[in-house]
Amino acid sequence: MVTLDDLRVRRLGECRHDSTLAKYVGGRKTNEHYVDEDDRVLFDDTIELLASHGLPLGQVPTLEPGGPRRKLYFPPGATKVGVVTCGGLCPGLNDVIRGLVIELKNHYGIDDVVGFRNGYAGLNPALEYPPIELTPERVSKINTQGGTILGTSRGAQDPEIMVDRLVELGIDILFVIGGDGSIRGASKIAAVARGRDLPLAVIGIPKTIDNDIPYVGQSFGFQTAFTVAAQSIAAAQVEAQSAINGVGLVKLMGRYAGFIACYAALANHHADFVLIPEVPFALHGESGFLAALERRVAERGSAVVVVAEGAGQGLMTDAQTGTDASGNRKLGDIGRFLEGEIVGHYASIGRELNLKYLKPGYSIRSVPAKAHDSVYCVRLAQAAAHAGMAGRTDMVVGRRHNRFVHVPIDIVVSERNEVAPDGDLWLSVLESTAQPLEMR
Amino acid sequence: MVTLDDLRVRRLGECRHDSTLAKYVGGRKTNEHYVDEDDRVLFDDTIELLASHGLPLGQVPTLEPGGPRRKLYFPPGATKVGVVTCGGLCPGLNDVIRGLVIELKNHYGIDDVVGFRNGYAGLNPALEYPPIELTPERVSKINTQGGTILGTSRGAQDPEIMVDRLVELGIDILFVIGGDGSIRGASKIAAVARGRDLPLAVIGIPKTIDNDIPYVGQSFGFQTAFTVAAQSIAAAQVEAQSAINGVGLVKLMGRYAGFIACYAALANHHADFVLIPEVPFALHGESGFLAALERRVAERGSAVVVVAEGAGQGLMTDAQTGTDASGNRKLGDIGRFLEGEIVGHYASIGRELNLKYLKPGYSIRSVPAKAHDSVYCVRLAQAAAHAGMAGRTDMVVGRRHNRFVHVPIDIVVSERNEVAPDGDLWLSVLESTAQPLEMR
Amino acid sequence: MVTLDDLRVRRLGECRHDSTLAKYVGGRKTNEHYVDEDDRVLFDDTIELLASHGLPLGQVPTLEPGGPRRKLYFPPGATKVGVVTCGGLCPGLNDVIRGLVIELKNHYGIDDVVGFRNGYAGLNPALEYPPIELTPERVSKINTQGGTILGTSRGAQDPEIMVDRLVELGIDILFVIGGDGSIRGASKIAAVARGRDLPLAVIGIPKTIDNDIPYVGQSFGFQTAFTVAAQSIAAAQVEAQSAINGVGLVKLMGRYAGFIACYAALANHHADFVLIPEVPFALHGESGFLAALERRVAERGSAVVVVAEGAGQGLMTDAQTGTDASGNRKLGDIGRFLEGEIVGHYASIGRELNLKYLKPGYSIRSVPAKAHDSVYCVRLAQAAAHAGMAGRTDMVVGRRHNRFVHVPIDIVVSERNEVAPDGDLWLSVLESTAQPLEMR
Amino acid sequence: MVTLDDLRVRRLGECRHDSTLAKYVGGRKTNEHYVDEDDRVLFDDTIELLASHGLPLGQVPTLEPGGPRRKLYFPPGATKVGVVTCGGLCPGLNDVIRGLVIELKNHYGIDDVVGFRNGYAGLNPALEYPPIELTPERVSKINTQGGTILGTSRGAQDPEIMVDRLVELGIDILFVIGGDGSIRGASKIAAVARGRDLPLAVIGIPKTIDNDIPYVGQSFGFQTAFTVAAQSIAAAQVEAQSAINGVGLVKLMGRYAGFIACYAALANHHADFVLIPEVPFALHGESGFLAALERRVAERGSAVVVVAEGAGQGLMTDAQTGTDASGNRKLGDIGRFLEGEIVGHYASIGRELNLKYLKPGYSIRSVPAKAHDSVYCVRLAQAAAHAGMAGRTDMVVGRRHNRFVHVPIDIVVSERNEVAPDGDLWLSVLESTAQPLEMR
Repeated sequence: MVTLDDLRVRRLGECRHDSTLAKYVGGRKTNEHYVDEDDRVLFDDTIELLASHGLPLGQVPTLEPGGPRRKLYFPPGATKVGVVTCGGLCPGLNDVIRGLVIELKNHYGIDDVVGFRNGYAGLNPALEYPPIELTPERVSKINTQGGTILGTSRGAQDPEIMVDRLVELGIDILFVIGGDGSIRGASKIAAVARGRDLPLAVIGIPKTIDNDIPYVGQSFGFQTAFTVAAQSIAAAQVEAQSAINGVGLVKLMGRYAGFIACYAALANHHADFVLIPEVPFALHGESGFLAALERRVAERGSAVVVVAEGAGQGLMTDAQTGTDASGNRKLGDIGRFLEGEIVGHYASIGRELNLKYLKPGYSIRSVPAKAHDSVYCVRLAQAAAHAGMAGRTDMVVGRRHNRFVHVPIDIVVSERNEVAPDGDLWLSVLESTAQPLEMR
Repeated sequence: MVTLDDLRVRRLGECRHDSTLAKYVGGRKTNEHYVDEDDRVLFDDTIELLASHGLPLGQVPTLEPGGPRRKLYFPPGATKVGVVTCGGLCPGLNDVIRGLVIELKNHYGIDDVVGFRNGYAGLNPALEYPPIELTPERVSKINTQGGTILGTSRGAQDPEIMVDRLVELGIDILFVIGGDGSIRGASKIAAVARGRDLPLAVIGIPKTIDNDIPYVGQSFGFQTAFTVAAQSIAAAQVEAQSAINGVGLVKLMGRYAGFIACYAALANHHADFVLIPEVPFALHGESGFLAALERRVAERGSAVVVVAEGAGQGLMTDAQTGTDASGNRKLGDIGRFLEGEIVGHYASIGRELNLKYLKPGYSIRSVPAKAHDSVYCVRLAQAAAHAGMAGRTDMVVGRRHNRFVHVPIDIVVSERNEVAPDGDLWLSVLESTAQPLEMR
Repeated sequence: MVTLDDLRVRRLGECRHDSTLAKYVGGRKTNEHYVDEDDRVLFDDTIELLASHGLPLGQVPTLEPGGPRRKLYFPPGATKVGVVTCGGLCPGLNDVIRGLVIELKNHYGIDDVVGFRNGYAGLNPALEYPPIELTPERVSKINTQGGTILGTSRGAQDPEIMVDRLVELGIDILFVIGGDGSIRGASKIAAVARGRDLPLAVIGIPKTIDNDIPYVGQSFGFQTAFTVAAQSIAAAQVEAQSAINGVGLVKLMGRYAGFIACYAALANHHADFVLIPEVPFALHGESGFLAALERRVAERGSAVVVVAEGAGQGLMTDAQTGTDASGNRKLGDIGRFLEGEIVGHYASIGRELNLKYLKPGYSIRSVPAKAHDSVYCVRLAQAAAHAGMAGRTDMVVGRRHNRFVHVPIDIVVSERNEVAPDGDLWLSVLESTAQPLEMR
Repeated sequence: MVTLDDLRVRRLGECRHDSTLAKYVGGRKTNEHYVDEDDRVLFDDTIELLASHGLPLGQVPTLEPGGPRRKLYFPPGATKVGVVTCGGLCPGLNDVIRGLVIELKNHYGIDDVVGFRNGYAGLNPALEYPPIELTPERVSKINTQGGTILGTSRGAQDPEIMVDRLVELGIDILFVIGGDGSIRGASKIAAVARGRDLPLAVIGIPKTIDNDIPYVGQSFGFQTAFTVAAQSIAAAQVEAQSAINGVGLVKLMGRYAGFIACYAALANHHADFVLIPEVPFALHGESGFLAALERRVAERGSAVVVVAEGAGQGLMTDAQTGTDASGNRKLGDIGRFLEGEIVGHYASIGRELNLKYLKPGYSIRSVPAKAHDSVYCVRLAQAAAHAGMAGRTDMVVGRRHNRFVHVPIDIVVSERNEVAPDGDLWLSVLESTAQPLEMR
């Protein structure tokens, strides 16, 4: 169980500089928008959870709210900032970059922002990707493009080398936009800097198209992702309904968490089956998926199956999934596997089948963010800028209970956000699809 | 300050019927998705607010969570349901209608759902709008259309007459999808039924494109609305930037609350000024809006102004706004007023002006819901169906702290949800636009 | 060379019934919209072509224009019509169905329209797909859905059996919406009817997402198709540009004709290479595709390759493409083949490669038609209705020189429309991509 | 009647430079894509029109085809080019600018392209808008933005001053993207240059969102325009159908030509009435518009009226339309006028009316071009670049009979393209709306 202590955010030191909110927001002295240091956001949702701590109110777990502070650690107008984007694409990366640049300029008078290219590779000078300057002009329209103007890559670099590089360039605050691996990398950079006693703030902005990072609210780009995914489900339904015994099979992202599959399926009620990693299912037998699919097709003339890429891994053999260099089993291609099983099943019962298999992956990752995600990206960037200037480090920004919050990295990488099989989201999906529970 | 007592939801009586979740979701006995009756959702966000009650945990304000109950008031498969949509259009109305019909069928085996036409007018037999039957087939694709297939109207009908009509038709549960006025009307229907001791459940699904109904989370259709509104802001920017001294003026919805203006402006960072009802502003003088606009246009070559329809009412005279039959001042047309003032100002300083005035109102109200709102509508409809079947009445469904909740109508019509001038949303807008604070 | 005689359209017999244009378009006697029987549309585009016939003007090849006739073969208000959709999906099928139903009703007072289900299978009573009634109410919103509400299937049925079925149902006019195979099928139906001396009109509305049917202008759905295809190219570019040595590979439709690849590539100038069936290319060697790709990636950091499914077939062995039951070579999967070759090439030169392979096929086929195609579908349907009522048969409608025209089926199935390697479309592509000519 | 002579395009002089097609398209000597100088595109569509000239084939009116020539007037790689955009916004302006820059670079090795700002104002040095450099990098993503990155303005400048400026900057070819007024202005610039014996080529790319410039095929941006306009008609229908006696009134562009109204109405069959400048109509009386509207609303419950801004001008008095400085009558606001008339009519018959009036003008003009228009813009730009390099002047590019063509400016400004009341487009509209013909 998370404690108040677990939620404490690291600080570089005392905040000595006056904030410039008054200066940059319209020139008038105002105190109204500063966050009070004793304001705390509740961690729990229900009275049941809150009561379960058995603690006085002052000691229950709470989070530090995001937002501008009266006193800053870094001096406005004289701070140097770096930004890096890591891992796979996700809608909204350019919105976050743009939001950071505009906020640092408008609110803190900072002109000196550089972008590291191609993920952490850009922080390793041996790889020779020189950083690029990020000005308000340079970023003014990038939100209309998908992807990241900085480029990205997967994989780690030596944190010592990266800290050397940051010191060399005089970076005060590093913003890391990345997934759980990259956020862990950010924590290592912060640790190395701490070990060397360097006043380097490292602020993460969690990126996960699968929405599987916990405690930070819905991740940016997620709504855009399931919006686009829903279009593929609609396409699959059109194909299925236009054919004799049509089956539309849609493989979506979701290695460990089926959120995209669930939300995309709910968006248009078109799915007859949603298969996610969190809910195992049987394939064969009277109550298995294949028999259920056959019944649904017989009943309605067609069916749509939505499968998250991490679903049904237990159905495949090691030979089918393959193993990596260390002998660990790889993620098997459940889409292709199911395609084969369905085709085989219909062949075995001697009935016509028209199966259309859609894999919209890249089309989902590469689109520009939709309006809601754009707003969220801008506001996450604003909260991140405030956190960095106030000398917080080794943390990410998130949103909980309608507030922006600071969350220590240790906490967000300690587990995964998943669809609860006994929760209301999965229930909504079951009610929408009317797929049989006993399939599992 | 809201108390635990204020948040108590009315019930028609004891729940005696077994739920059919097991039957309709896959045929297996399962208890896992039922809501525990002692589960309660926190009302407050911050430890500060929670502490301010000075109450033991058991007495702080909490809400009843939504979701399916083990025991129902109405018998599954033998309950008759009515649905009515009231007031102005809002994206998602058809999604809610469809969600209700599918949920009542899939989960509760209910085939007998009628839709009343043209708002409360359809509940007054004298106006002769016969109700229409709502089957799963009839509603299967309506979510791709904007508006409401039931039609709608504004204005009230006599609650006694409406209850007579409901009794005549044998309606057990009435779902009212409407704004604050219509929700008040729903409460009156519930009160008349209560007075007559009729077992009629009345469940509201709050509809407000302005997002100004409190305690229910973001209202359905709101995200779609600001997404489309943001396109008009983008259009205004294109027009403004393509012209010499171009000014794009966009009037958006928001009689009392500027949420759409704020979110739409944040979505693309294109606005130079956002004017909302909650934050008064001066027009003339060195620190007034007109001088600030002139400076911005001089600096950047063009500017975009986003104004909510309820903003700046104090700037207009009664003659300009007009008064209604009872002598009350009407909402003045701030868009046209500002257009005149800006044109006048540029004429007075003898400088060329190219002003383009956009009023996208109907285009926003009439679009089909985007994916996120569709998901939300489906889940609101599911929660409403569960509440009605469990014999709740005189309440609305909403979402708070990531849970669906039941909220008494008295509470949601007692005040309005507004943009807090000292809150983080307005701060985000100020930081995005860099518009001067002192304008007010 | 096509002659005037080749372009002559078959007629069932003399037109004896008065048209009802006056009645159904507003009730006033008017002659202005009728097509004059001696009006003819030019077949050739250039004076060079026209001169090449060496014929007097009266004998050069011309087409019969589409449109309403003063005299009809079938009586308005008392004619029975059938509609069938065949083959793969294409945007606009529902628009054509809807256009036919509305035109037959509005213009000719015909209420009796049936739709055959699942392609020609629906015309074989043994397969037991009863036809469905098509009313204006039934079709009023179907244009917002992709696919075909009638369902479709591939493959032929015995024309004798189909004519029996048409006679049994009393069908006077059959509209066939389908590709070249289905249009040939329509011609066989017409021939059987002719052999039996039956007054059955068979009118084709050519459907080819590849735009490869000649002499009928651009095919319906084609613009929608390349619009959606262009989105995949944009996605591929985003993925490619965000990665180190990123290559986006997009496989598009186009078995014999590369029109979709060409137009989609031109739509956003994002493609670095466009590979189509009409223009062979070499893979290896200094001037081959792989070396050219390597150079482009080195120069620009990334590249986008668009390949039509029928391109580069000569590069694969029979073993790679496979052969069908009759020993004929199948269409090889050029996308997967190129993916392997590119990966192999980069492995062989020891350079990092990030290849993303997109296959948007079904997503393109299943979308609703965009506005331009919707207009075109409606007008094709109107022209088809006029042709059928005027007793034409064994023909398709098309558009040439800004006029709707009637084209005998013999002519449109005699060859294929292809991208001319020496034409201006391919030149536009070469200039947009700046891909090396000598690659071939 | 247009003669062959009218269609002759002016040339600056003999073409002496070798084309660089071979160089810039892949490095191989090739002749295949050059246009033959004796190739001519037919001007007429029908054999009837062609025969009406009574001329031998060699003398019938034909157009010069567009495309690359073997010999050029200006030397590749050493030519200086200017681009200017004039008049109101239209989707595709940035595509044309981008297409010109890329074509001049890829095909002709030209690096020296400048853009004049704010229309012809940018060619008058007194107004102090310095030109901007247009590089392939600068224009690489501008096609995703609406408007014009160069800015635009209405109105003329002295051609002598503009030619002075062009000479001062050493411009060899000026590309003018503008409407009929601006194209006339381009002709004046060409005439002044001719008078001074300057080797200045002036090539127009006709821009008219109303599609009213004749002889050049459909104008760029037009398809995008009616696509967006159709969305407003759909919105109007949603509003109308959701209300009691709902009437949706949509005012679209079209001062002299109703093409946008016609195509937008056909795109979704939603309009009940389409009113265009070319077809006068009566308002009052049994057969007038108001009575017809009343009947349609009574019959269907609602109606949608689409009106082009130039329609029904005869119905308004001079007082209602206003007159300009020279006493000429201005274009009256037919939308507002009809709104008043409809409201008055329903008041007079004492029936409820819910009228929603939509004016989507700016939202249509400011969007980025859709894919088809983007392709068209690129290809128009390519044709324009070829024409300019080949020393053509005082002409515009267009498309006729599936070929790009050169058309003298005199011809395209001599009349207007209009919807023919007796043509097949208007007939399609009448059949789609089933509006009474006798209304006129």
